[in-house]
Amino acid sequence: MAPNGSSPEGAEEVCSIEAASAFLADSPVSGEAVADDVATFVARHSAEGHQGTDGAHPRPIVVVTSGGTTVPLERRCVRFIDNFSAGTRGAMSTERFLEAGYAVIFLTRTGSLQPFSHLLPSADPPELVDRIACLAKPAGADASTGDSNAPCSSSGQGQGQGQGPIVQIRPDHAAGVAKVLAAREACREQGTLLVLKYETIFEYLTYLRILADQLQPLGPRVMFYLAAAVSDFYVPWSELAEHKIQSADGPLELRLQRVPKMLGALASAWAPASFVVSFKLETDQSLLVKKASTALQRYGVHLVVANLLHNRKDVVTLVEHQEAQAAAAAAAAGAGEAAAGAGAGLGAEMGQEDGGVRAVELHRPAEEADIERLLVGAVAARHAAFRQAAGA
Amino acid sequence: MAPNGSSPEGAEEVCSIEAASAFLADSPVSGEAVADDVATFVARHSAEGHQGTDGAHPRPIVVVTSGGTTVPLERRCVRFIDNFSAGTRGAMSTERFLEAGYAVIFLTRTGSLQPFSHLLPSADPPELVDRIACLAKPAGADASTGDSNAPCSSSGQGQGQGQGPIVQIRPDHAAGVAKVLAAREACREQGTLLVLKYETIFEYLTYLRILADQLQPLGPRVMFYLAAAVSDFYVPWSELAEHKIQSADGPLELRLQRVPKMLGALASAWAPASFVVSFKLETDQSLLVKKASTALQRYGVHLVVANLLHNRKDVVTLVEHQEAQAAAAAAAAGAGEAAAGAGAGLGAEMGQEDGGVRAVELHRPAEEADIERLLVGAVAARHAAFRQAAGA
Repeated sequence: MAPNGSSPEGAEEVCSIEAASAFLADSPVSGEAVADDVATFVARHSAEGHQGTDGAHPRPIVVVTSGGTTVPLERRCVRFIDNFSAGTRGAMSTERFLEAGYAVIFLTRTGSLQPFSHLLPSADPPELVDRIACLAKPAGADASTGDSNAPCSSSGQGQGQGQGPIVQIRPDHAAGVAKVLAAREACREQGTLLVLKYETIFEYLTYLRILADQLQPLGPRVMFYLAAAVSDFYVPWSELAEHKIQSADGPLELRLQRVPKMLGALASAWAPASFVVSFKLETDQSLLVKKASTALQRYGVHLVVANLLHNRKDVVTLVEHQEAQAAAAAAAAGAGEAAAGAGAGLGAEMGQEDGGVRAVELHRPAEEADIERLLVGAVAARHAAFRQAAGA
Repeated sequence: MAPNGSSPEGAEEVCSIEAASAFLADSPVSGEAVADDVATFVARHSAEGHQGTDGAHPRPIVVVTSGGTTVPLERRCVRFIDNFSAGTRGAMSTERFLEAGYAVIFLTRTGSLQPFSHLLPSADPPELVDRIACLAKPAGADASTGDSNAPCSSSGQGQGQGQGPIVQIRPDHAAGVAKVLAAREACREQGTLLVLKYETIFEYLTYLRILADQLQPLGPRVMFYLAAAVSDFYVPWSELAEHKIQSADGPLELRLQRVPKMLGALASAWAPASFVVSFKLETDQSLLVKKASTALQRYGVHLVVANLLHNRKDVVTLVEHQEAQAAAAAAAAGAGEAAAGAGAGLGAEMGQEDGGVRAVELHRPAEEADIERLLVGAVAARHAAFRQAAGA
């Protein structure tokens, strides 16, 4: 959508772009290290693109954002407002995008869920180690023998050579750990996963802007999949106190400004040629599709993934312009994906049409542990149709 | 200190106890599961106390609090104010208290640093696994042989029996992982570590109150070592909105109340017979001892550990009543600890006397990686003198 488009929201979008620029001008984050990492990643995949990974199409690229942003209340940040998100959607979607042949830039909050985490016990580091590994005494030092069902039997395996205890992976976690190691090794070899970590809203939006700038030459090949929970309110850096707020007598009054909506700036100005997917989380079913439709039309994104808090792991609703859905369905049918139920989500769709906007509901298949394979398949089919329409 | 003591702060302390009770009455947390865990722990150590662990003295008990508390801004908590603390002091001190023969109740923020974490790489779970373990192909499947320096050599060790890849611990992390496993196993066998996790200020203070109540029968044998970073301001639960704050137009105004200071209530009413150590973190050297002295006198705690943000890993200042320091020095000298420099901190002390309050500065010994061994030794010596004075 052009910044000066004739939609009724045109004026607001221009304003949003200005507000976004003003926000970034006030940000204390330079992002130089991130810019270097992104440049290396883009160079690798730009070069690869000329030959194509399967001899025909270059590898598509997705920026997956995940976790919640923080808002500092002091410059030397002790106190901050946080926006809770475990990061499950972003981490699981990243794995599915990798499976679908994408190169992924994962822009993630420190400490939130990472790709392949779900293959490991959910625990802090010492407990994690305790759950996946155990000590076995060196062979011969243990009186009980022949018990092959013991969690860590002393069958002479391990890396110790007779000096002290031997650490072994517990058999019930060996397969999960092996999968994590193999998956991470594959990402390293192919250069398909770049992880960028943020904490604050300033870092998040500065890095997103850097990504948009550097990925712009790759145009429609790039998708932005904006699953992070971005703070709505913040205190501008220029208004923040340098030191810890003193806890003198009396209540504390905080006055927070709106964070400018970056979706409009991203879709219309920073990455106008790319495919932009935003997320909407609500608690009220009756408002869900209406609010998602408003976001679709106001910000010029291509697809809104709408969730309800209580069932977001089992049901998602794709909200999009009607013609986009038709093109995606055609592309998915052409690729033979619809029959598998993992393409455009046709099997489970429940269309709602309203003013050229269509809502398609996807339900987690009973045999799958997560809905992200279905969701990512449906989103990737729409991105493929978008690339095809753009002649990319 | 008696609730109706004749100090000028007497009235304020009574008020503080009332405010603390009002806070807890408004808390949404019941803490029943925590109460059960604590009861089991107390029963074990009460019984052990009658015989004594070394035939003479029962094992002392310390409650170490760690990490920062959160303040929810909605009842279904999406947004909250956080008080950053990595939890290093609490986690390291817990290890040192265990070494010193204490049983430890570790009241810790979810996700903050845990005891024995420092023996492992600091990384999210998939990266942690990648750094401590690796895949080795089954013996015979690897062409390169005899390379004993390879990170994961295929010398036929591991738990696989010829089916697929074998997971091994990397040799450079085997010793660290073995230490974590052995330390956690020892804690399980001896029942010396109970970990309780909190997120919100409501959970933290409710659990602390439960601990004080249940440990009260053990009197002077118990120490409270309050290293957690507790929020200064909060929104009472009764004033919190049920759902997500709607981000309508205009700025957001938040009005937060003071969290009542629990130190006075804990030291004078909830755990009047126990040894209470509080912490003070400042950025201004000139205010440090003065503020710590005020806390010592106002709240009736036995010892304040004062830190400066920039050098808190190398220097701490113990602020205490003068007679307490003399008793501790005598106890430490009696136990022959002063010569080792790890007892009452006599080696590095730099006394400052002011109105019966004395400040002793401890410096991290050059040969130690952390200051917590020295700090915990000095605190434990004071607790020993306190128990002796109480005839316990």
